[in-house]
Amino acid sequence: MLKQDPTDHQENLLNGYPPLKLVNRKTENEQTIVQVAGVKFGGVDIVVIAGPCSIENKEQLWAIGNSVKNSGARILRGGVYKPRTSPYSFQGLQDDGLKLLSWIRNEIGLPVVTEVMDPRKLELVCQHADMIQIGSRNMHNTPLLNEVGQIRKPVLLKRGMSATIDELLFAAEYIVKLGNNQVVLCERGIRTFETFTRFTLDISAIPLLKRLCHLPVIVDPSHGSGHWWMVPWLSKAAVAAGADGLIIEVHHDPAKALCDGGQSLLPEKFQTLMTDLKALAQVMGRKISTSEN
Amino acid sequence: MLKQDPTDHQENLLNGYPPLKLVNRKTENEQTIVQVAGVKFGGVDIVVIAGPCSIENKEQLWAIGNSVKNSGARILRGGVYKPRTSPYSFQGLQDDGLKLLSWIRNEIGLPVVTEVMDPRKLELVCQHADMIQIGSRNMHNTPLLNEVGQIRKPVLLKRGMSATIDELLFAAEYIVKLGNNQVVLCERGIRTFETFTRFTLDISAIPLLKRLCHLPVIVDPSHGSGHWWMVPWLSKAAVAAGADGLIIEVHHDPAKALCDGGQSLLPEKFQTLMTDLKALAQVMGRKISTSEN
Amino acid sequence: MLKQDPTDHQENLLNGYPPLKLVNRKTENEQTIVQVAGVKFGGVDIVVIAGPCSIENKEQLWAIGNSVKNSGARILRGGVYKPRTSPYSFQGLQDDGLKLLSWIRNEIGLPVVTEVMDPRKLELVCQHADMIQIGSRNMHNTPLLNEVGQIRKPVLLKRGMSATIDELLFAAEYIVKLGNNQVVLCERGIRTFETFTRFTLDISAIPLLKRLCHLPVIVDPSHGSGHWWMVPWLSKAAVAAGADGLIIEVHHDPAKALCDGGQSLLPEKFQTLMTDLKALAQVMGRKISTSEN
Amino acid sequence: MLKQDPTDHQENLLNGYPPLKLVNRKTENEQTIVQVAGVKFGGVDIVVIAGPCSIENKEQLWAIGNSVKNSGARILRGGVYKPRTSPYSFQGLQDDGLKLLSWIRNEIGLPVVTEVMDPRKLELVCQHADMIQIGSRNMHNTPLLNEVGQIRKPVLLKRGMSATIDELLFAAEYIVKLGNNQVVLCERGIRTFETFTRFTLDISAIPLLKRLCHLPVIVDPSHGSGHWWMVPWLSKAAVAAGADGLIIEVHHDPAKALCDGGQSLLPEKFQTLMTDLKALAQVMGRKISTSEN
Repeated sequence: MLKQDPTDHQENLLNGYPPLKLVNRKTENEQTIVQVAGVKFGGVDIVVIAGPCSIENKEQLWAIGNSVKNSGARILRGGVYKPRTSPYSFQGLQDDGLKLLSWIRNEIGLPVVTEVMDPRKLELVCQHADMIQIGSRNMHNTPLLNEVGQIRKPVLLKRGMSATIDELLFAAEYIVKLGNNQVVLCERGIRTFETFTRFTLDISAIPLLKRLCHLPVIVDPSHGSGHWWMVPWLSKAAVAAGADGLIIEVHHDPAKALCDGGQSLLPEKFQTLMTDLKALAQVMGRKISTSEN
Repeated sequence: MLKQDPTDHQENLLNGYPPLKLVNRKTENEQTIVQVAGVKFGGVDIVVIAGPCSIENKEQLWAIGNSVKNSGARILRGGVYKPRTSPYSFQGLQDDGLKLLSWIRNEIGLPVVTEVMDPRKLELVCQHADMIQIGSRNMHNTPLLNEVGQIRKPVLLKRGMSATIDELLFAAEYIVKLGNNQVVLCERGIRTFETFTRFTLDISAIPLLKRLCHLPVIVDPSHGSGHWWMVPWLSKAAVAAGADGLIIEVHHDPAKALCDGGQSLLPEKFQTLMTDLKALAQVMGRKISTSEN
Repeated sequence: MLKQDPTDHQENLLNGYPPLKLVNRKTENEQTIVQVAGVKFGGVDIVVIAGPCSIENKEQLWAIGNSVKNSGARILRGGVYKPRTSPYSFQGLQDDGLKLLSWIRNEIGLPVVTEVMDPRKLELVCQHADMIQIGSRNMHNTPLLNEVGQIRKPVLLKRGMSATIDELLFAAEYIVKLGNNQVVLCERGIRTFETFTRFTLDISAIPLLKRLCHLPVIVDPSHGSGHWWMVPWLSKAAVAAGADGLIIEVHHDPAKALCDGGQSLLPEKFQTLMTDLKALAQVMGRKISTSEN
Repeated sequence: MLKQDPTDHQENLLNGYPPLKLVNRKTENEQTIVQVAGVKFGGVDIVVIAGPCSIENKEQLWAIGNSVKNSGARILRGGVYKPRTSPYSFQGLQDDGLKLLSWIRNEIGLPVVTEVMDPRKLELVCQHADMIQIGSRNMHNTPLLNEVGQIRKPVLLKRGMSATIDELLFAAEYIVKLGNNQVVLCERGIRTFETFTRFTLDISAIPLLKRLCHLPVIVDPSHGSGHWWMVPWLSKAAVAAGADGLIIEVHHDPAKALCDGGQSLLPEKFQTLMTDLKALAQVMGRKISTSEN
């Protein structure tokens, strides 16, 4: 049991995870700041990433990209290589999607994050994206971790859907050990017996990861629930639990989305959420990151 | 997928759970208010219940009872019959503890909630307690549910540690069906593969239960994590996710607690949390329940 | 890691579970024999319990009772108090069912096992049943455990659907501590993320429980899968894994069963299974218990 | 509920999984035979694969390879690229290990199976191995699935540790869709709340996969439990549940194994197990595959 007296500066857990050497927090104030084209994760600002699950076409990307930017998202998300359960589901636009990513990035001026699954695609993706996502299904993919450890792009490392906190921290250690300390951790829901939600968002992972580790921690409430109407509630919970950011799926026409429409917010609902989050962040002694910084 | 257009008043889920007849929400604004000696669950106010895991003796109860009252708790918790894993662990003060409950209730003027496991004890407990708790290990105990359905005391029904949302709602239906609609639901963490936390607090259960059902929903961040230092973070997350209340373990000497010391907050940390929650509740359009109402 | 050399007599685990005092195995050959009206659990013989999920009426009980007896079942199962998720589901015949139990017991000469959920019913049930079942939903029900610890009837203690092996052993310890060492443990499936099966039968629980504890261990493949066609496969797996018995749901008209028809075997399929099990038991150095002993 | 009458030829589940097109069973007798250098999976014979978790050096490989061959293993397992949780753990001999694989293969005349994690290594590994393993942590790795779908080597596809049966079948569909129908499925334990075992072996996956799909199904009792002394029990259970094979870790000096020593059988214990399995297979109407076929 940790001591709760005034001199308790978390020392019981600090260094308390000996097999980790690099990503574990050694002092109370140690904090890595991860920078994505000037957007900073890990400081006072809470960064919101938003965009479609998958990039579908220019019109879709333009509509969603502009709306999330106007609502205050600092980074645009958009999948081009999609890890789908069924080979008969839409697999993403693949390489062609990357060109759309570069296009929208230049048009609206937001940095972009996209997932890489295949180490052979990493170099190509790095030419188009500002941040590389390792998805939940690849958190244990050590060849991929070893590759992103050697690049000089920030990495968004999502927790495996059945990965323990230990395993997530060790996956980050793989990357940092090879020289890339620009890693943002992401809680995105774990697999449990409950079936109403797609996954069970592990809200306690946020304070836990922040106590054990000095890397920024963000939350994906879209995959973490599978229901658009839960996303605002879970986003607020994440900020209240100390998250350094959010990654939210937004779609202007969810019913026609090629992937995950059911968990995508309409732009107007995302706008409302951003307004709510601003007030909430302030109470938490934080602020929602804006371009005016 | 639910529609997200302006006319979407949650109609897709309303009545959408046909096997339930009583506890399921039928209209958007339907909301049961549960009253415990004047303290109301389910309205704008967020009710905080606090106190020791187990009642140990008069001095302990006096110290903790007064401190949580002064910090703003509206109801005092305190276990006298403890469902312990091992028969060699402290099982609570049993019947003797009830007298202490009555004593502290009169002394400090807070209503009290305590757990009943044995239907044969229900009548006795009802003479001493203002609210009857059905614990996680007894959520499926249908004889007990049937008994509390016939009393005229409010019930705090905790989710079984591996109960689905369906099962929790059906457990409430057992109680309400017999005529007692004064039921408060409580999310307290579910059993998952993660071992850092004692249980995984299912934060999504809050918006889900509130959407499916018209009963108030509160959260137990103490059992939901097993770590005192997580309790403030999870408490804030719960309020941000829409919880109608919290039940928090507080102990003035956690190292010597006979039960669950590791997850009990010191009184001064509880005081700080209450202050923080007030500001947070306001941002959420709620307020922390106070005796000045 | 346990030593695997020729002198390794499981000593590493023996006594290796210090919080347990009574049910933990202290020597390799220690083994409790539990007797139910002459039928012995825990020896060379493998005991098969069979019968309907719920007792519905005289005709049903007569048909199923005779058929399972003729196929070689040594004990008849039949629920009268049913722990149903929904209060609108059939709750069993309650007290009336007990009379049917006594009747069939006398008619066909098989001892009977039935579940008790309410400690107030225990005395009454003991007048009609030869073995008292504590069901999965009541494994943590300590008042009930304390009651059956004080009776002189053998107890069938089912593992809670989300109980760890520790917790099951401690539940047994509650009973044995009070003087009743006639306890048979039952693995009946645990709750996991998999949804094709109703529960996930934890086959490893069998060798594990037998190594840690000296009580007999049986398996419920009916609840453990939820699918009748899996029952023969899982029954064989259980015997191959060292189980001391099986408890199998059989119904002569599953489509009309008031409870759990989908997981109940037709009598002819149960007959085939019994034949198959005889050969399998022999290979395992065991035999299926018969009345000719 | 499936019908259990004499005309019930599993028709209710056949074709009952519409999103699958290729790997789902369409008729009762449909069965894919997978051949690995003459060793056949999916027929009457039960194939045992055995060997060390990791290849460590020539002496180790020689000792273990010969002993498992002499005990009746038909295929040698040996990892060279190891997916370890920690980057500080032994990662396998990498490319150098492949040469040892080729060497032992030629020396003792057993075909070999080894895991590939990186699609860039697939071509190289195909030059040394007779069967390509996709490990549990890469079951969702679609780029890798797509690569092995295009080779002409049999694939051992292990279930992800938190993959549903659906997801495993879809992973197989990815491979078969691209033209490689030589896929053997492997149940290796799933992640649950139980901590005594490393994973929970899902024994019901065996009859379920065999009913839904026409590919052979084998079981890994070593990873499925994490304890060497459970391996014989779980191996027998797997055969009794209808498995077409086993993959078992064997080490001649488990205490010094660089990986997973705690779950590796000593050669003499493996020998005993093989003897036991022969008798068991016969009772099940099967036989343990031998080189005399």
